[in-house]
Amino acid sequence: MQLAFSAADIAAIIQPLSSKGTTHSVINGIAALNLAQIGDLSFLGNSKYRQEVAASAASIILLPVDYVGEPRQGQQYFFVEKPSVALARLCARIEQLLWPKPKPGIHPTAVIAMGARIAASATVGPLCLIEAGVVVGERTHIEAQAFIGRNVAIGSDCWLMPRVTIASECVLRDRVRLQSGVVVGSDGFGYEFVADHHEKIPQVGNVVIESDVEIGANTTLDRARFSHTVVGEGTKIDNLVQIAHNVRIGRHCMICSQVGISGSVTVEDYVVLGGQAGLAGHLTVGKGSKIDGQSGINSDLAPGSFMKGTPALPYNLEQRINVLRKRIPDLFKRVDALETKLVDLKKPSAP
Amino acid sequence: MQLAFSAADIAAIIQPLSSKGTTHSVINGIAALNLAQIGDLSFLGNSKYRQEVAASAASIILLPVDYVGEPRQGQQYFFVEKPSVALARLCARIEQLLWPKPKPGIHPTAVIAMGARIAASATVGPLCLIEAGVVVGERTHIEAQAFIGRNVAIGSDCWLMPRVTIASECVLRDRVRLQSGVVVGSDGFGYEFVADHHEKIPQVGNVVIESDVEIGANTTLDRARFSHTVVGEGTKIDNLVQIAHNVRIGRHCMICSQVGISGSVTVEDYVVLGGQAGLAGHLTVGKGSKIDGQSGINSDLAPGSFMKGTPALPYNLEQRINVLRKRIPDLFKRVDALETKLVDLKKPSAP
Amino acid sequence: MQLAFSAADIAAIIQPLSSKGTTHSVINGIAALNLAQIGDLSFLGNSKYRQEVAASAASIILLPVDYVGEPRQGQQYFFVEKPSVALARLCARIEQLLWPKPKPGIHPTAVIAMGARIAASATVGPLCLIEAGVVVGERTHIEAQAFIGRNVAIGSDCWLMPRVTIASECVLRDRVRLQSGVVVGSDGFGYEFVADHHEKIPQVGNVVIESDVEIGANTTLDRARFSHTVVGEGTKIDNLVQIAHNVRIGRHCMICSQVGISGSVTVEDYVVLGGQAGLAGHLTVGKGSKIDGQSGINSDLAPGSFMKGTPALPYNLEQRINVLRKRIPDLFKRVDALETKLVDLKKPSAP
Repeated sequence: MQLAFSAADIAAIIQPLSSKGTTHSVINGIAALNLAQIGDLSFLGNSKYRQEVAASAASIILLPVDYVGEPRQGQQYFFVEKPSVALARLCARIEQLLWPKPKPGIHPTAVIAMGARIAASATVGPLCLIEAGVVVGERTHIEAQAFIGRNVAIGSDCWLMPRVTIASECVLRDRVRLQSGVVVGSDGFGYEFVADHHEKIPQVGNVVIESDVEIGANTTLDRARFSHTVVGEGTKIDNLVQIAHNVRIGRHCMICSQVGISGSVTVEDYVVLGGQAGLAGHLTVGKGSKIDGQSGINSDLAPGSFMKGTPALPYNLEQRINVLRKRIPDLFKRVDALETKLVDLKKPSAP
Repeated sequence: MQLAFSAADIAAIIQPLSSKGTTHSVINGIAALNLAQIGDLSFLGNSKYRQEVAASAASIILLPVDYVGEPRQGQQYFFVEKPSVALARLCARIEQLLWPKPKPGIHPTAVIAMGARIAASATVGPLCLIEAGVVVGERTHIEAQAFIGRNVAIGSDCWLMPRVTIASECVLRDRVRLQSGVVVGSDGFGYEFVADHHEKIPQVGNVVIESDVEIGANTTLDRARFSHTVVGEGTKIDNLVQIAHNVRIGRHCMICSQVGISGSVTVEDYVVLGGQAGLAGHLTVGKGSKIDGQSGINSDLAPGSFMKGTPALPYNLEQRINVLRKRIPDLFKRVDALETKLVDLKKPSAP
Repeated sequence: MQLAFSAADIAAIIQPLSSKGTTHSVINGIAALNLAQIGDLSFLGNSKYRQEVAASAASIILLPVDYVGEPRQGQQYFFVEKPSVALARLCARIEQLLWPKPKPGIHPTAVIAMGARIAASATVGPLCLIEAGVVVGERTHIEAQAFIGRNVAIGSDCWLMPRVTIASECVLRDRVRLQSGVVVGSDGFGYEFVADHHEKIPQVGNVVIESDVEIGANTTLDRARFSHTVVGEGTKIDNLVQIAHNVRIGRHCMICSQVGISGSVTVEDYVVLGGQAGLAGHLTVGKGSKIDGQSGINSDLAPGSFMKGTPALPYNLEQRINVLRKRIPDLFKRVDALETKLVDLKKPSAP
């Protein structure tokens, strides 16, 4: 990962609105303000760190236009509308250097069943297994050791990191990106209790992942009992998330790490689920709702809800209760005191 | 996944008690009542959805015998004792079509150590690794890319989905079904703090999984520090569950997604653990207990306990506290008011 | 796993301070006090089980020096400073028998890119993929089906269990041990909301895992947005843990199963995080802090903090509130009663 950008290279990539100071250092790293050294580029992405700018040793700092201050000797400020967006642009350039487009073709150690149709521009890595009836679209890149089950359909420009499982009959549209260890299409967790034991309910549906979805490492998505488990267009899912059978997730949602979504839940568009939140089965989370981390949702939520806690309450109410909660020991004492006083009050009044 | 069943085919499979109406549509899908279209079969599995039956466009609907109503033109009702059981029977038939029995034999790309004993009726998929001393029973199906470590014993009629790990010395009895990404026999998390660092306690036991157990995708089960981590007969475990070392789980339990069970816990028979629940180490959960989702258990539970919350309380008490919890801001105001009134009361009495 | 130790063998390994009684049984198993049978060795590792010693059928029992009691016929007590340390020593011996050092060399089914440098004393198992630029140190053992991405550097004496992913550019120092299914270097979960959708922020940093770190099954560690996600020397991480991008974990921490650590968190040295705890982004947990299981941390913690609950409070305060919490229904009744009494008090005073 050997970077070497001049200040002029950086300016050409991020197109700053203005600049202050000069550096001749070659930029070969990116680092947080307080960790950066000469040769690093840094940035002010969160105003929380504003006071760290002046002390930063970074050779280049990306700053919002309203930042007031002077660079030190050999340091250059670049002013941009959004430092984090500018940084993203720079990182995108680095990304191209780090992960160059792979050569199309099928590695000789991949095992490809008869009748699988793989686009000539697609790449299939070493030690993959692709079963019968699979279709892989243009420029899709399947890295090493993937399992792609019978009749799976994968669109174009997808990127499957090493060691993913796409079980039979599942569907990925275009530009889907899966991190390592993802399992798409495991059986839903469905049983009937019969006499003295649990009998399996066959799970014969599939999983459909719409375009521009990204899914994090070791996340699991169960196939539907019947019909489809669906992840809507543009939704991003973090690591170690559980999506149960027949869940329907809308478009452009953000689902943070270790969230658990129970069977047959509907999550509408633009919902944000904080890390480790849990959703009970068969409920609907309305469009644009936000659920704080570790919250537990047990009932339908109207669009635009903002919830926190287990069981979740409206965010502001939960925050207020959490503040008062610390004073509960004191409240008990106050009620004790009131009771004592009331007894005392009554005593003298009884002649 | 091309289904094509006539109403007569369906009747033959599910054996309805009675029927109403007639359809000539070919059934080529299964869908929820509100999503079903002509050509779909639907069902009333949860009385919550009873009012959706009349509006459903499904060509066939499976209903409980006490349902009152008339099918629309070209729609047929089948009355059964339990619609979800009838559906399961139908899905079992579809399952046979979707996942036909594999041909016995070992794929040429599997790597099999000398001395492994694999039944002639078993199937070993591509790119599997089977180490020395392994025994695989009759008709067991090991899908692609599995790792089966030294001296592992697997019974008959097991089904291991792609990309599972069974580490050395572990035991699977009969009809065990593992979803993709399961790890059986990772090291237990055991260390002694010595001087200034943690020293590993070797984990030299194994994991024993009894018959008819199913385990969900990317779930992990640690080998015992010594002796055995045990999952009892008929128990079902969902995705992303953590079973620590020396845990002993009884028979016919249901362990939902993302549950964490700490070391040396005993879970007796017929226990149900809701999603994301956590059990602290060295405790016993009595037979038939139910733990609500996200609960935290810190002490032994008597048989038949029904618990909720962190730290968990009896379900009804926790529910009552949760209702009152919303009124805590009001309670503080009421105590404020009482204190004020009491001061006012005292004032006039002081002449 | 056929053990066969005599009492003399055991004494030679654990070096007891003293002994009581005699056994001639061959020890072929290790078991808990209440489960042990003749031929088993057992131990008193937790004083909670002290009363189980007398009834235990174990042939050998490891006991702390302050234990008072007499072995039964054919039973031998070994007194040691710490029974659990003595047991660890015995298990270490068993471990060597169970997992003998593998033969150095590269399995013929492994796929090794041109230019990867693998020490002659290292072992690479079957069906591994090692990409270009990888360096593997002396005596490191990479088990089957691993994926090692471009330019990864792995030190000496590491042990990677089957089916791990080390994505490109990541670094493992010496004696790092990874359980099966670990993913090191998945993309961080970083997006900018632009117009009506989430745009990916490229994640071009890496993960650095310092020496003597152990990581549990199916745990995921995201690469930094830029620079490094770091796990400090000697830290132990359990199964199914999520470490987000740019997290910096100190030395000798213990991170229990299913913990989630959000982006850019700093965890200082010697911190203990209980199972299922969650840490919000961009905060610092001070040196030596302890976080109880399932807790939620939303702000910086001073060194030596001991926290519990969501949102977390100091442990003793949280425990006190949890005790009072059960009495909240009663508190409401008491306030009701106070209000009634106050009304009654006022009534007679109004003539």
